[in-house]
Amino acid sequence: FLKTNDDLGLVAVGFSGGQCKAGVDAAPMALIESGLVDQLQNDLAYKVHYDNEVHAYTSLLPSSDPPHRGMKNPRAVSAVTQELSSQVYAHAKEGRFVLTLGGDHSIAIGTISGTAKAIRERLGRDMAVIWVDAHADINTPETSDSGNIHGMPVAFLTGLASESAENPFGWLKPEHRVSVKKLVYIGLRDIDRGEKRILREHGIKAFSMHDIDRHGIGKVMDMALGHIGTDTPIHLSFDIDALDPSFAPSTGTAVRGGLTLREGDFIAECVHETGSLVALDLVEVNPSLEQNGAAETVRAGVSIVRCALGDTLL
Amino acid sequence: FLKTNDDLGLVAVGFSGGQCKAGVDAAPMALIESGLVDQLQNDLAYKVHYDNEVHAYTSLLPSSDPPHRGMKNPRAVSAVTQELSSQVYAHAKEGRFVLTLGGDHSIAIGTISGTAKAIRERLGRDMAVIWVDAHADINTPETSDSGNIHGMPVAFLTGLASESAENPFGWLKPEHRVSVKKLVYIGLRDIDRGEKRILREHGIKAFSMHDIDRHGIGKVMDMALGHIGTDTPIHLSFDIDALDPSFAPSTGTAVRGGLTLREGDFIAECVHETGSLVALDLVEVNPSLEQNGAAETVRAGVSIVRCALGDTLL
Amino acid sequence: FLKTNDDLGLVAVGFSGGQCKAGVDAAPMALIESGLVDQLQNDLAYKVHYDNEVHAYTSLLPSSDPPHRGMKNPRAVSAVTQELSSQVYAHAKEGRFVLTLGGDHSIAIGTISGTAKAIRERLGRDMAVIWVDAHADINTPETSDSGNIHGMPVAFLTGLASESAENPFGWLKPEHRVSVKKLVYIGLRDIDRGEKRILREHGIKAFSMHDIDRHGIGKVMDMALGHIGTDTPIHLSFDIDALDPSFAPSTGTAVRGGLTLREGDFIAECVHETGSLVALDLVEVNPSLEQNGAAETVRAGVSIVRCALGDTLL
Ligand SMILES: [Mn+2]
Ligand SMILES: [Mn+2]
Ligand SMILES: [Mn+2]
Ligand SMILES: [Mn+2]
Ligand SMILES: [Mn+2]
Ligand SMILES: [Mn+2]
Repeated sequence: FLKTNDDLGLVAVGFSGGQCKAGVDAAPMALIESGLVDQLQNDLAYKVHYDNEVHAYTSLLPSSDPPHRGMKNPRAVSAVTQELSSQVYAHAKEGRFVLTLGGDHSIAIGTISGTAKAIRERLGRDMAVIWVDAHADINTPETSDSGNIHGMPVAFLTGLASESAENPFGWLKPEHRVSVKKLVYIGLRDIDRGEKRILREHGIKAFSMHDIDRHGIGKVMDMALGHIGTDTPIHLSFDIDALDPSFAPSTGTAVRGGLTLREGDFIAECVHETGSLVALDLVEVNPSLEQNGAAETVRAGVSIVRCALGDTLL
Repeated sequence: FLKTNDDLGLVAVGFSGGQCKAGVDAAPMALIESGLVDQLQNDLAYKVHYDNEVHAYTSLLPSSDPPHRGMKNPRAVSAVTQELSSQVYAHAKEGRFVLTLGGDHSIAIGTISGTAKAIRERLGRDMAVIWVDAHADINTPETSDSGNIHGMPVAFLTGLASESAENPFGWLKPEHRVSVKKLVYIGLRDIDRGEKRILREHGIKAFSMHDIDRHGIGKVMDMALGHIGTDTPIHLSFDIDALDPSFAPSTGTAVRGGLTLREGDFIAECVHETGSLVALDLVEVNPSLEQNGAAETVRAGVSIVRCALGDTLL
Repeated sequence: FLKTNDDLGLVAVGFSGGQCKAGVDAAPMALIESGLVDQLQNDLAYKVHYDNEVHAYTSLLPSSDPPHRGMKNPRAVSAVTQELSSQVYAHAKEGRFVLTLGGDHSIAIGTISGTAKAIRERLGRDMAVIWVDAHADINTPETSDSGNIHGMPVAFLTGLASESAENPFGWLKPEHRVSVKKLVYIGLRDIDRGEKRILREHGIKAFSMHDIDRHGIGKVMDMALGHIGTDTPIHLSFDIDALDPSFAPSTGTAVRGGLTLREGDFIAECVHETGSLVALDLVEVNPSLEQNGAAETVRAGVSIVRCALGDTLL
């Protein structure tokens, strides 16, 4: 679904306004400094299109940003993700693979809307999303306890949270959206009560850690990719907190009982092998949270990206 | 097999006389202080019947308790488990789920005999036991090297160790017993020579870590529950040392190569899903053994109990 | 394929010249001091034939040993492995099981050539090799970046690296060799570019960590042993770095994402169960590399050996 196999647009997003812990904005630089771009160019032979900037979008941040429908920083997140949506769209419109390094998971509002629109225009197709995460991130402002928008991106992207006229994400048009039918979760293990109801009511395909234990990650990936089918472009949004804290401790909302690094890499490899992957987000690496675990978490993030971009063992 | 879905009898057993390390008697309080009862009531909506006491049974302990048939503290363990058997029976007779927080694993002589008797009287059925443990705890006094009774409860409960007239557990009557045919082990990895012989001779169903590695925990649970069948009430006796020491270090006889926390939770979830679970023991959490690992071990214990009582990811 | 079930020849090889880090020569003594020989005799009832010496082969080491075809210490490694080949052959010719404790993995040039020759003479059969390792160790001198011979033993043993007349391993005759068709890798995850090409060109059977994640270790062992068939003697060469560094940290070239100890033991148990195992190498334990991890690594090594020699859980 891409024009070439080796053109890659890279967007570095130093934004942390979708949640309350400082530091996740430093992730793109940490990932790049640990050699990620070099490896993409040299080991994996990608032509990397990168503006050499970690975007903080400071000019877009409002001086005052009071809560709206309980959401924290609603105007900031809206403005940043709208701009990011254009950046991602610009790459995807060229038929490039788009790699976005976050940042907290609210930025997926920008990345997925950008690729969804470009894929529709280029190929006339709806795109699928594989969301690898300990969390479902599908709260509406009304079901959210915390008001942190990084727990809501899927609700906005699927249109579940946009009933209100005062939606700060009113810039999201139908062409930006993805269908709940094309959404697959992997790795869930910490879901809010309201989210459980949403998942059930809309029949959303979700593989929890329980499913992975029951079937093994090999079978789960067969089922996940079978649900999507072979004729559908895939956007992979990978929250590093899907991994167990023993492999990726330095993240804002770590939850025990997660994926091993081997399982995380395996997921990324399998999605790559489909040949349908058109974009990847890597989010929620926060190098400032764990003195000892930051380097390990960054290394885990690099590993996931490499695997999703075609690195193989044999 | 229960009268209601939400009545739960809780017995807190602060007893450590089935083995030699102090501290396992402090487990019930540690589990409760970490919020277990609150969670059962609020998150899982159980009506908890609890006498608000961690029983130490001090009035039952003899002033002198010399070894008998090599067993240490035979009179103390016998008296305590006989009393516990009545406590558990009283809850089970009412058709309540019975949750017992130990204490060392010798207390299962009391819990299983109590539920077995009540289930026979209420339903006219034999009960099955799922014993999740690194150890088989099926030594007879004669095959035991240590003389610690927490390594013998299954031998007494199945009648394998009661040939002697001087059996201190002479209070165990046929109605208290379970059949070796209704017994299933999961997680075994440290079995004494005499125990291996007993398991083989009686054809007892046992899934070792080797079986879990071979088939995966999903398939093993299918086989374990298939062996029991759908028409049989189940008592789950969960020794925290079934978990790998990296997840539950603070226990008296830790053995490497154990269950991951995910596998432990999965076992508990699967047993809950049968709808046949009537009682649960959680034993051998010893908060005094590992300075750093105690909190983690308690958390693991809480997690197992929650999963066995219906907590789900999705 | 052995004369008896309980005669075991033990060779202790204190050699580290196939790579550059000191300390791996201390492994045999560390393994023996931790009780390995006692356990083989007492728990597993082997008659152990052991010359009570950790061989350092100092009299064989040349005073000067400049690189040849890029190889480091070529004469030393050649002389030591040739002598080791005779030692192993002497045991195997008697129909004994041969256990070799390394040392770095270059010593497999000696062990495998010794058993291959003896098996041919005794049984008129070709032998299979199961190579459990993070690495393929199949570099030729020409494809190797480091020149360390412990990355080349498979190339010499299969004849892939012997085209040159100036081959320092010219003493390897056809009767010492194994066929690439009878070679199976398990645990691979760090393969050099040249090695990937060699594996592909010769269609060598290899199960990487990706395959283990996809199928589970149970299915992988079925496939690995199915490839070899039931009528073929097996030499198991186990590099401790196949295990994940969290289980075996003290080794020269640790690579993340490896086997759990449970998986390592499972592999060894499965190979034992075939009844076809005729020899085992345990290599690359380096007790000097990790202050805290050395004892754990030695324990892991002992566990692998015990499992391969028939220790079982049930
Ligand atoms: Mn998350
Ligand atoms: Mn997320
Ligand atoms: Mn135990
Ligand atoms: Mn026990
Ligand atoms: Mn290796
Ligand atoms: Mn090796």
